[in-house]
Amino acid sequence: MINKLVEKIKKTKAPVVVGLDPMLSYIPEQIKQKSFAEFGETLEGAADAVWQFNKGIIDCVYDLLPAVKPQIAMYEQFGVEGLRAFQKTVDYCHKKDLVVIGDVKRGDIGSTSTAYAAGHLGKVAVGSSRLSVFDEDFATVNPYFGTDGIQPFLDVCKEEKKGIFILVKTSNPSSGEFQDRRIDGRPLYEYVGEKVAEWGGQLMGDTYSYVGAVVGATYPEVGKIMRKVMPKAYILVPGYGAQGGTAKDLVHYFNEDGLGAIVNSSRGIIAAYKQEQYAHFTAANYADASREAVLAMIRDLDSALQQSV
Amino acid sequence: MINKLVEKIKKTKAPVVVGLDPMLSYIPEQIKQKSFAEFGETLEGAADAVWQFNKGIIDCVYDLLPAVKPQIAMYEQFGVEGLRAFQKTVDYCHKKDLVVIGDVKRGDIGSTSTAYAAGHLGKVAVGSSRLSVFDEDFATVNPYFGTDGIQPFLDVCKEEKKGIFILVKTSNPSSGEFQDRRIDGRPLYEYVGEKVAEWGGQLMGDTYSYVGAVVGATYPEVGKIMRKVMPKAYILVPGYGAQGGTAKDLVHYFNEDGLGAIVNSSRGIIAAYKQEQYAHFTAANYADASREAVLAMIRDLDSALQQSV
Repeated sequence: MINKLVEKIKKTKAPVVVGLDPMLSYIPEQIKQKSFAEFGETLEGAADAVWQFNKGIIDCVYDLLPAVKPQIAMYEQFGVEGLRAFQKTVDYCHKKDLVVIGDVKRGDIGSTSTAYAAGHLGKVAVGSSRLSVFDEDFATVNPYFGTDGIQPFLDVCKEEKKGIFILVKTSNPSSGEFQDRRIDGRPLYEYVGEKVAEWGGQLMGDTYSYVGAVVGATYPEVGKIMRKVMPKAYILVPGYGAQGGTAKDLVHYFNEDGLGAIVNSSRGIIAAYKQEQYAHFTAANYADASREAVLAMIRDLDSALQQSV
Repeated sequence: MINKLVEKIKKTKAPVVVGLDPMLSYIPEQIKQKSFAEFGETLEGAADAVWQFNKGIIDCVYDLLPAVKPQIAMYEQFGVEGLRAFQKTVDYCHKKDLVVIGDVKRGDIGSTSTAYAAGHLGKVAVGSSRLSVFDEDFATVNPYFGTDGIQPFLDVCKEEKKGIFILVKTSNPSSGEFQDRRIDGRPLYEYVGEKVAEWGGQLMGDTYSYVGAVVGATYPEVGKIMRKVMPKAYILVPGYGAQGGTAKDLVHYFNEDGLGAIVNSSRGIIAAYKQEQYAHFTAANYADASREAVLAMIRDLDSALQQSV
């Protein structure tokens, strides 16, 4: 799957992933009204609105992009019905040939990680059947448990040719509280990054590993260092746009081959119609606004990368 | 909810939580056959078997216990249908007046943690409605993001009078890879424990905080230290029994009031009928075997605590 992701990034010339993190406040009134009229102001109604909203955006942007990244929390908050909308979103993105990065940030002790890995990336055994479940292409994983929490994901990735992105340095303001703690003079995230490189060494695709890392756009100096620590890891970069990361900050997350990083934007794309510069689209054409925002993001990154050569 | 948990522990004289972590291999054939006959060897069939298995155990042990701890991964691996079984399990445990600790180990940046906190402990807004979703009483939370990943859980706990257990030192063999890394001579988990005490100071119940911690039974020396670092935090202790922790190891996880810790056993209870000592119950009476195993665990802990006085 990392090979497919790299191929699609080359083909679309877009090292960009759209975060499908729909909050109800992002969803235009006309969609919510229709869903609530059918299902009431219920979890089912909310889940339907989320799904309709996503579908509109996917239909309008899928040809521009290599990948999408649904954030499962935004679905899970609506319970079983919300998770059904997550499932429908993953399935629909696959139909559109998009690579799906499940932003699930799971992680637990070994036997439990095995269940998460099976449910999100692999297959579960039920009697004599082996069934796919959520079936994302990649999942994000929390490293706090160490190797035996990660190993089940590696095993499934090997079998299914799928991938993971391990949290190394997250984009939020207080990520430094634990991640930046210095151990013999070096921050914790560097040790995590070294493990990412080690784990990923066993699982190489053509040029990049099945095992990538998350490094936030909001800490560009960290990105520069981690690029060297994990040369074969694709870096998934959250925090561009709404959280404050700029394209100029991100050039060092890429390798000299122009690859090695994929930048996420969520709010900045899916709620673009709420920004002044895209307000002329109006809520009725929210997905067209998202398309314009994707095109602008691709141009922005391309321009920064060209200047850095 | 921490007050209710403490009251129930006092009343049952059982600082014990049963982990409802059903793997299909634990479930007696007669239950699986019935579920598969009705729903096929499908995710729905697996989820039904899990739910029927849980119900049998809950009916047989609820009067002995203060709390249960369903591990969501074991349900999530069966997708939407599995999560419906999780929901049914939580609801049924509430009917039996059990405190429910959702072992979800969620954690993310602030806005995303807000969604997890709402979905698992709080309420979500849908139009003008505010709806409960999974509605556990406590949830386990991963600290890797620092304060702004935890704060949304604290906010919901305050509003709903619920609680969290933050991962400090996990029970698995490789937990030391990152958690034991030394920062100015002290391990990372101590820094996390200090933050648990700090976060919990804002949210005190009558004698213990709404904010507890997870410290594995497999590291008793750590338990002894962390008891002092976080005197007002309830410690949720996984790793007793099947993972190797013994009752004698655990006395220092408790305070002098005989409270302050609650010990989890999963496999050792729910799959008791597979152990030689309970094999006479046979698979048909698996839940009676679980009841015997709960009683034995309560005696084991009580005896160790009496000897330590």
